[in-house]
Amino acid sequence: VDAIGTLSVRGAPAVGVAAAMGLAALAGASAASHPDLFRESIRHWASLLRHSRPTAVNLRWAVDRVLAAASDSASPHEAALAMRATADAIRDEDRAMCRSIGERGADLLADGMTVLTHCNTGALATAGIGTALAAIYVAHERGMRLNVIASETRPLLQGSRLTAWELGRAGIPVTVVTEGAVASLFQRGQIDCCIVGADRIARNGDVANKIGTLSHALIAHVHNLPFYVAAPRSTIDVATADGGSIHIEDRPGAEVLGIAGASAHLAGVAVLNPAFDVTPAPLITAIVTDSGVHRPPYDFSRD
Amino acid sequence: VDAIGTLSVRGAPAVGVAAAMGLAALAGASAASHPDLFRESIRHWASLLRHSRPTAVNLRWAVDRVLAAASDSASPHEAALAMRATADAIRDEDRAMCRSIGERGADLLADGMTVLTHCNTGALATAGIGTALAAIYVAHERGMRLNVIASETRPLLQGSRLTAWELGRAGIPVTVVTEGAVASLFQRGQIDCCIVGADRIARNGDVANKIGTLSHALIAHVHNLPFYVAAPRSTIDVATADGGSIHIEDRPGAEVLGIAGASAHLAGVAVLNPAFDVTPAPLITAIVTDSGVHRPPYDFSRD
Repeated sequence: VDAIGTLSVRGAPAVGVAAAMGLAALAGASAASHPDLFRESIRHWASLLRHSRPTAVNLRWAVDRVLAAASDSASPHEAALAMRATADAIRDEDRAMCRSIGERGADLLADGMTVLTHCNTGALATAGIGTALAAIYVAHERGMRLNVIASETRPLLQGSRLTAWELGRAGIPVTVVTEGAVASLFQRGQIDCCIVGADRIARNGDVANKIGTLSHALIAHVHNLPFYVAAPRSTIDVATADGGSIHIEDRPGAEVLGIAGASAHLAGVAVLNPAFDVTPAPLITAIVTDSGVHRPPYDFSRD
Repeated sequence: VDAIGTLSVRGAPAVGVAAAMGLAALAGASAASHPDLFRESIRHWASLLRHSRPTAVNLRWAVDRVLAAASDSASPHEAALAMRATADAIRDEDRAMCRSIGERGADLLADGMTVLTHCNTGALATAGIGTALAAIYVAHERGMRLNVIASETRPLLQGSRLTAWELGRAGIPVTVVTEGAVASLFQRGQIDCCIVGADRIARNGDVANKIGTLSHALIAHVHNLPFYVAAPRSTIDVATADGGSIHIEDRPGAEVLGIAGASAHLAGVAVLNPAFDVTPAPLITAIVTDSGVHRPPYDFSRD
């Protein structure tokens, strides 16, 4: 709960796997206790885990699935084993999901492209090779020469700290820019397309993702360039009609002011620090999931 | 030269006044030397000052004006006095310019508005009350209740470090956001207009300003909201036909990576760090100068 709440574990799929593993580990440690106490405590932990981040639908989904695995068990010990098997399955499915997204996403890219991405959606955000970055990894495996522009992703700098590090290790050329520089690069023709992840996808294709995503989508749209979203099917929340009903987590202002020299004169300065924004479906060229490449108009009511 | 080059003095008008004062001070200290040596040295200093920042047109303009003040003088001493008087005049004109921009700019605002601004264009950027912020200061003097959204302005955080501080001291409500959060605020109807400064304005109204400006302009445009530029007349460079011919200063990548934990693992990460971007004239609702409020289509060839 602490690691998820402070973003030590971040990236919707990684959050889901971590929550699943966490709940299974707690169940394993508690399996010796009385069945009623066991049931009560795993429900309590599940509730804490479910609320450790408000936006990620994978989190709720993974916790509920591990919890459900316990329901038919004859004993706490058996329940804990079933929960652990389910958590392992979520991890393995996550790896397969990444590979599937990567293969489909790579089909949208071409040799020589410069690809903008935002935040971190790679191996550090999943149990596998990532979501949006999976497309880039698979394209690289196929021999395409890509250049990646990683927007630094204020306030927590997942772009410069995580994405640039991951891609650099993989030998994929990557350049970090501030969010403010992205429009200028589009204007000068230095970006060919944009691919990002998603924290939650509504039934109509509206996408909640890391703050700053909407800006990239609007600017790509103005420049008539493709804007792709790559995310697991589990990110699609069929219970959410559109982006307007997605609750956006407001995070502490200290995340923004913390780097500004930590100056005493900033005490009391008001900050708005929404963690996510909602990109309306019409701005999205395609949504790539492990089940296929979806094009507008989106309708995920049957998924 | 050092203070301007490292951005200790920043803001196009303040840079102009500082360069003028610097050249006058050097001339005063050197006035005892031989006339030929004096002439040679002030030309040398003028050249150093002129090139201490590549984009600001005020810098070149102020240095050339102080240099010209020396041309008809009978002695180095007399020249130094004339140069000092010219530097003083540039400072006084800058103060009057700020007031004039503020009065005209305030006419574009209305009670209750939430105004987005970028970078710092206030008392810390000029010898007076600023340019874009002057409009906000004068509106505040007139009793209008404004809320200001200050985008933090990566990489050097002039929005959170300077603008929030200035406005807070003046008792004007101000909220800091990252550049990435701006689109989301526009989408939710939480911004009524945007007003920014300018480092250089081309003859056709294209505006070079702090990196991130173009993004705000595009997003304001998509949301059909006014985007204003407020700057001294001296910012208009009639020799520059359009934004395409404005040289954009590339600054060190360390400005971007420096805050990312200063981590060793970021060594070697490529960074693009353009200091300015160019907002095309059609995105600008009005350009406010000390000589008037200009509306598109802009034609500054006769200014």
